Amino acid sequence: MSDLTHLTIAQLGEQRLLQKLYEYCDRRAVGDDAALLSIAPEYELAVTTDMLVDGVHFSSGLAKPGIQTTTPFDVGWRSAAANLSDLAAMGASPLGITVSLGLPADLPYLQVEEFYQGLKACLTQYRTAIIGGDVCRSAAWTVSITALGQVHPQRKILRTQARLGDVILVTGVHGASRAGLELLLNPTFGQELSREERDNLIRVHQRPIPRLDVPSKIWQIDPQARVAGMDSSDGLADAVLQICRASGVGAILDYDRLPRPQCFAKLRSFSEEEQVNFTLYGGEDFELVLCLEETLAVALQAQLSGQVMIIGQIQPHKQVTLLQRENSSQNSVLALEKGFQHFSG
Amino acid sequence: MSDLTHLTIAQLGEQRLLQKLYEYCDRRAVGDDAALLSIAPEYELAVTTDMLVDGVHFSSGLAKPGIQTTTPFDVGWRSAAANLSDLAAMGASPLGITVSLGLPADLPYLQVEEFYQGLKACLTQYRTAIIGGDVCRSAAWTVSITALGQVHPQRKILRTQARLGDVILVTGVHGASRAGLELLLNPTFGQELSREERDNLIRVHQRPIPRLDVPSKIWQIDPQARVAGMDSSDGLADAVLQICRASGVGAILDYDRLPRPQCFAKLRSFSEEEQVNFTLYGGEDFELVLCLEETLAVALQAQLSGQVMIIGQIQPHKQVTLLQRENSSQNSVLALEKGFQHFSG
Repeated sequence: MSDLTHLTIAQLGEQRLLQKLYEYCDRRAVGDDAALLSIAPEYELAVTTDMLVDGVHFSSGLAKPGIQTTTPFDVGWRSAAANLSDLAAMGASPLGITVSLGLPADLPYLQVEEFYQGLKACLTQYRTAIIGGDVCRSAAWTVSITALGQVHPQRKILRTQARLGDVILVTGVHGASRAGLELLLNPTFGQELSREERDNLIRVHQRPIPRLDVPSKIWQIDPQARVAGMDSSDGLADAVLQICRASGVGAILDYDRLPRPQCFAKLRSFSEEEQVNFTLYGGEDFELVLCLEETLAVALQAQLSGQVMIIGQIQPHKQVTLLQRENSSQNSVLALEKGFQHFSG
Repeated sequence: MSDLTHLTIAQLGEQRLLQKLYEYCDRRAVGDDAALLSIAPEYELAVTTDMLVDGVHFSSGLAKPGIQTTTPFDVGWRSAAANLSDLAAMGASPLGITVSLGLPADLPYLQVEEFYQGLKACLTQYRTAIIGGDVCRSAAWTVSITALGQVHPQRKILRTQARLGDVILVTGVHGASRAGLELLLNPTFGQELSREERDNLIRVHQRPIPRLDVPSKIWQIDPQARVAGMDSSDGLADAVLQICRASGVGAILDYDRLPRPQCFAKLRSFSEEEQVNFTLYGGEDFELVLCLEETLAVALQAQLSGQVMIIGQIQPHKQVTLLQRENSSQNSVLALEKGFQHFSG
């Protein structure tokens, strides 16, 4: 059936489309009114859902002409990664996802096939299957994914659980995805970087890695640990602010410990303020921002050396302050609504 | 905030929209990266998902002008009912739903509010909450619902479980939803009916009732029962054909026992063939089509008198035959692809 890939959705027809998409699904799960999944005894179910629309969240080239910064394969990968990242941020491990598609008649089927290949490539890494979905006609290509996971009731990561005395620990670096996007959009950006550095930033943008590995490391160190957190899909600053709001606390972040990609230092034409803006507000790095006791954070740092960083601590005063150690008169207060303005506070 | 209802989605803005929609959600479930749900010990999870697009599955009046046969409230009700019906068809009881919305900037917010009121009105009948979702911009109003339920592993209703010797039992009547739609579209249809009869057919079309009550009645009679089945959302004929295909069997249906609405008999201008077509192929009645042992079916019929009907039996020959008792030379064979043609041989 490989010659079907040059057809549009309308030419392929619903029956053949469904038959092709079934090949990407767990056959044991599809084919009845609902999919059935087993959950480990005593575990709770975690459910997260996302909708993506062509021309808003990605570009097939059909909705509006322009630069295609993400191939259909990458849109699939990112869609899967974003949902798995939400599960990781709860401390949950994935059970399966459902995928609903609204498809325009004139969309080339090849794009849908590549989208599923991207979805599957990401999901396979985490032994997660597509267990169901729906397909219908639509003016714009629309994707709705629901991811299901399981979490042990004593090992939930909740935004509300940050406490005074906690440190703030982040996985990975932040701003890489935003810089990767900039490399795709702006040919003058990043000329100081090596090819490998550029490719790496673009890879973070196109094929982010959900941090499903981190929660299990925490429970290995302390099965009773209390951990607050969320993922940094909407940016590092947003994550810290959301956790603080949900927990009724504030935070102090250490300016010198902001987890910037190392290669940012090479970007001579890229100002200090722009770098910090990418790191705090860039978003879509899909790392985890966690609040936990310092001893646990230090133990985790020892296990995952170089992959996590303690960047601050929880404070009682209900604001998020970015602390410039050298010159404390130039501290700033972060807000959800605005970007970071260097030394404005 | 009641005066917000005259605004468009763009005028309302994302923050106020989310704030309004949160009011329809289970507050304990929303506000983190994923919603958490408890499942009864040893139960399996049932997951079903549906996508609806304005101008394809319903009409807000925005996508294309025309007769609005379903209000936003009814679209909400039907969306909830369709998903709960899929859970009923597995023998599952509902745990919650997620709702993702793609919304055009110029959609009146009032329509979204009424849609949620309809969703909630249906869900409340079955103590089911909205536990999460997503909202994004879209050219056409798009709704994606995922419903979650729990089912006991020994009390699953599967399409594959029909066996020789089973009878075919259906709940309710079929063709009522299609007739209700006809009443809305065609002013000359149904003039022989009383107001109550007309209202009843329209109610079935606009506010169908998922048959979550039926599976529990079966397990009360026999906790070990093997039951095959699905819902009749795509029509009675489709359901019988799908079950037969999944189970590798065929079926004989009794023409005289087709579960038509009683009031069809009054429709003098509505031919016998049209009546049978509505009943077999109309769809969207959201009743259950079940295959089970005759003794169990008879016991269920005694409990739910008038609400269920034995309409045929499973046969080894892999086709679905509609048996005209009076004149067996005029039996028909049903197919998925075509409507019923009376006495076509």
